[in-house]
Amino acid sequence: VQTTLAELASLVGGSILRGDPGQGLSGFAAIEESSAGDVTFFGNERYLNALKMSEAGAALVPAGFPGDAVANIPSLIEVDNPSSAFAAVVKRFGIQPAQFHAGVHPSAVIDPTAQLDPAQVSVGANVVVEAGAVIGAGTTVGAGCVVGEDVRIGSDCLLHPNVTVCRRCILGDRVILQSGCVIGSDGFGYEPDAQGMFHKIPQVGIVQLDDDVEIGANATIDRARFGRTWIRQGVKIDNLCQVAHNCVIGENSALAAQVGVAGSARLGRNVMAGGQAGINGHVRIGDRVVVMGQAGATKDIDRPGYYHGFPAIPRREALRREALVNRLGEFVKRLRALEQKIENLEGGGSP
Amino acid sequence: VQTTLAELASLVGGSILRGDPGQGLSGFAAIEESSAGDVTFFGNERYLNALKMSEAGAALVPAGFPGDAVANIPSLIEVDNPSSAFAAVVKRFGIQPAQFHAGVHPSAVIDPTAQLDPAQVSVGANVVVEAGAVIGAGTTVGAGCVVGEDVRIGSDCLLHPNVTVCRRCILGDRVILQSGCVIGSDGFGYEPDAQGMFHKIPQVGIVQLDDDVEIGANATIDRARFGRTWIRQGVKIDNLCQVAHNCVIGENSALAAQVGVAGSARLGRNVMAGGQAGINGHVRIGDRVVVMGQAGATKDIDRPGYYHGFPAIPRREALRREALVNRLGEFVKRLRALEQKIENLEGGGSP
Amino acid sequence: VQTTLAELASLVGGSILRGDPGQGLSGFAAIEESSAGDVTFFGNERYLNALKMSEAGAALVPAGFPGDAVANIPSLIEVDNPSSAFAAVVKRFGIQPAQFHAGVHPSAVIDPTAQLDPAQVSVGANVVVEAGAVIGAGTTVGAGCVVGEDVRIGSDCLLHPNVTVCRRCILGDRVILQSGCVIGSDGFGYEPDAQGMFHKIPQVGIVQLDDDVEIGANATIDRARFGRTWIRQGVKIDNLCQVAHNCVIGENSALAAQVGVAGSARLGRNVMAGGQAGINGHVRIGDRVVVMGQAGATKDIDRPGYYHGFPAIPRREALRREALVNRLGEFVKRLRALEQKIENLEGGGSP
Repeated sequence: VQTTLAELASLVGGSILRGDPGQGLSGFAAIEESSAGDVTFFGNERYLNALKMSEAGAALVPAGFPGDAVANIPSLIEVDNPSSAFAAVVKRFGIQPAQFHAGVHPSAVIDPTAQLDPAQVSVGANVVVEAGAVIGAGTTVGAGCVVGEDVRIGSDCLLHPNVTVCRRCILGDRVILQSGCVIGSDGFGYEPDAQGMFHKIPQVGIVQLDDDVEIGANATIDRARFGRTWIRQGVKIDNLCQVAHNCVIGENSALAAQVGVAGSARLGRNVMAGGQAGINGHVRIGDRVVVMGQAGATKDIDRPGYYHGFPAIPRREALRREALVNRLGEFVKRLRALEQKIENLEGGGSP
Repeated sequence: VQTTLAELASLVGGSILRGDPGQGLSGFAAIEESSAGDVTFFGNERYLNALKMSEAGAALVPAGFPGDAVANIPSLIEVDNPSSAFAAVVKRFGIQPAQFHAGVHPSAVIDPTAQLDPAQVSVGANVVVEAGAVIGAGTTVGAGCVVGEDVRIGSDCLLHPNVTVCRRCILGDRVILQSGCVIGSDGFGYEPDAQGMFHKIPQVGIVQLDDDVEIGANATIDRARFGRTWIRQGVKIDNLCQVAHNCVIGENSALAAQVGVAGSARLGRNVMAGGQAGINGHVRIGDRVVVMGQAGATKDIDRPGYYHGFPAIPRREALRREALVNRLGEFVKRLRALEQKIENLEGGGSP
Repeated sequence: VQTTLAELASLVGGSILRGDPGQGLSGFAAIEESSAGDVTFFGNERYLNALKMSEAGAALVPAGFPGDAVANIPSLIEVDNPSSAFAAVVKRFGIQPAQFHAGVHPSAVIDPTAQLDPAQVSVGANVVVEAGAVIGAGTTVGAGCVVGEDVRIGSDCLLHPNVTVCRRCILGDRVILQSGCVIGSDGFGYEPDAQGMFHKIPQVGIVQLDDDVEIGANATIDRARFGRTWIRQGVKIDNLCQVAHNCVIGENSALAAQVGVAGSARLGRNVMAGGQAGINGHVRIGDRVVVMGQAGATKDIDRPGYYHGFPAIPRREALRREALVNRLGEFVKRLRALEQKIENLEGGGSP
């Protein structure tokens, strides 16, 4: 970055609250890692103290920000949304994401029956594309990926290295798969016999990932027992999540890291689940429900809102319950005091 | 599928409760995804309402099912176990699992000291088989797998793509490894010094997977510090589970997704653990114990039964405790009422 | 192993508490797996009963151990730390860890702009090293690994098979990566629009792993949104852990399996987190804090000590609360008794 405060203000559509428009800036960084040549941003009240101690040369701040509180920062630019304004800075001056370069690396093993246009796809080293697979234009398949038999991948997808897409699964357009994720592993289905031995139930369905889905590193999406496990448009699933067979995840839902969704659960649109939350098998979660981190949704949840704990209950109820549990010691003291008083009363008022 | 109701009834050993034996059926699907040409099945009371609204042409139902409740379904076949009957339908008419094709893909890198019979094993593209490894007849090693030094794999195993089996681990017969799982990573063992630095304790044992074990996608099974981490016959372990060094998992136990079993824990036979459950290090879990989802078994559990919560306690106790906590608000009200009454009594009966 | 009791005592710097110095020993094993020719060790009080039933020929025991309690064990050697003494036995007599063999396997795909000295590194079969990557002397890159563009790996590192290190990430010296882990996947960052659709925020930072870090199998460390996700010197992270974008993990901290650390959290030095624990985004955890297994640190924690439950609170408080909840049934009985007594008092002492 070699720019000035004035250029930055123009780039982010903000106004200079303080500082010399000609001030030179040569980098960008988080509040605590910034030094004199850097611009940073203030997007979260938690970081006010950090900003007061920051050595940044300039900061992007929200409208109405009290600039006097951070006399240590030479220059301030006021913007509507400091976080997205900063994203614009990063996009403009930061290191660029990997560029698309069409071509198939000579070490890739492409089955002759696979359909892909070498002039329009980018296939990395040691990739394996099996029989009947189809890969759309503009799609990148990173080094070491395995694309199974009859898999269909749309256009402009990005498979990071070492991804596995198992046979017959279907990806829409602009799907992003982070490294190590597995699409289409077998669902966990067994029939126990009288001796307790498990006999595998064939899992002959598929996984369908609709347009604009992103799946995190080492996440796993199981294929359906039959039919499909269906991740609908715009869903974002973080690292190490598990989505079991026959689940449906509604449009624009987001699952944070290490969430588990058990078999045949159905999530509505814009559902969110915090890190390590669990959703029980066959449960239905309505639109705009938020299951908080580490909570466990054991039953259907219809009404939008925040749900906490195990079993997951509405936030208000959970907080009330937690407050009551916190006061248990006090209640026991009051109980003891009453017992003493009653004893006194029963004893005829003995001291 | 091109079949008739009568043929279906015969295939599943059921009897036609309602419908035209000559009715044509051309597919199978889940209750909510079925249309007129499909057969579906009713295996879980939760889905009664869904069945009442289904457009399926026929359904497999359990004995005694009240057919009048689903007048929308033209045909019903009564069977003992609708779920396994449906599995038979899927097996007969569904897309078949990948077939075994013997041969070693030319891109596979097989150490000359490895022992495998190219006419009897199926080794995919870009597989690596290191020195001294042994692979039995009928075994499939999917694309991108790495089979480490001196690994021994039995007969009729199925390694899905991108599996890693680390050096010296041992697999029995008919073992299934889903994509991305890691067998034989180092156990998490360190000796801290006085400064708090950790010094690695060599992990020189192995993992042994007995016959008929299945390990889920991206699950990890650590090698023993010495001796073996032992997954016994018929155990099924779901995606993203962690089994730490020196654990023993008894015959026909099943761990649902994201379960963690800490070091040296020993599970008996037919143990089950629900999704995201945790089992503490060095703990012993007896035969037929069920640790529920998200529960944490912090101590030994001997008696069969269901265990809930953290720390995990018997279901009956957990439910009683939960009910009491739910009534805390009521208890506090009663406490307050008593305090008022006592005050009145103490005050000499003032109103 | 072919050794004698006397040689063993000398190797571990211990003294023979009981037994024939010339006794031959031919193996080592865990207490419960030992037979007559084996030496074992007693490092945990939990195993006293197991030791009483063990068939081991000799045991390493701590100073002051009451030898009479285990008359079944022919020989005992007293040492300061039986566990580390046993590690010395394993190191001396056990199967050796894989040896370093310099060279690049012919099937590896090394970009011509990558910098590595084939005489000083060990690169396995089907490895991919992309443009601009640098690999230091003494480093092993296992089969199937992908080392992305401009990655810098120090000296004497060990990458087990099928690891992915994404572009521009930086590893120090002596870093160990277990199989399947992913270093540098994109952080989970999106900006939702008014319609609830998520727009990806570019993640253009890196992951930096300092010297002596070890990352477990299938663990995931996300790259920073900008700047770096920083795993500092000597940190040990177990299998299936998730560390989100922009986190900092302080020196010599240790995260057990399946721990999740959300975005921008900062952990101090010598922090420990038990299995399946979660740490919330933007939270600060002070030096020497221990977050117990399955606990959830939702807020900053400053003081060293043990923290339990969700939300995580100091151990003492958590135990007190748990004890109170356990006694709820008793409290309700006492409440009921009081209500009865009051009724009697109010009723004028009616029987």
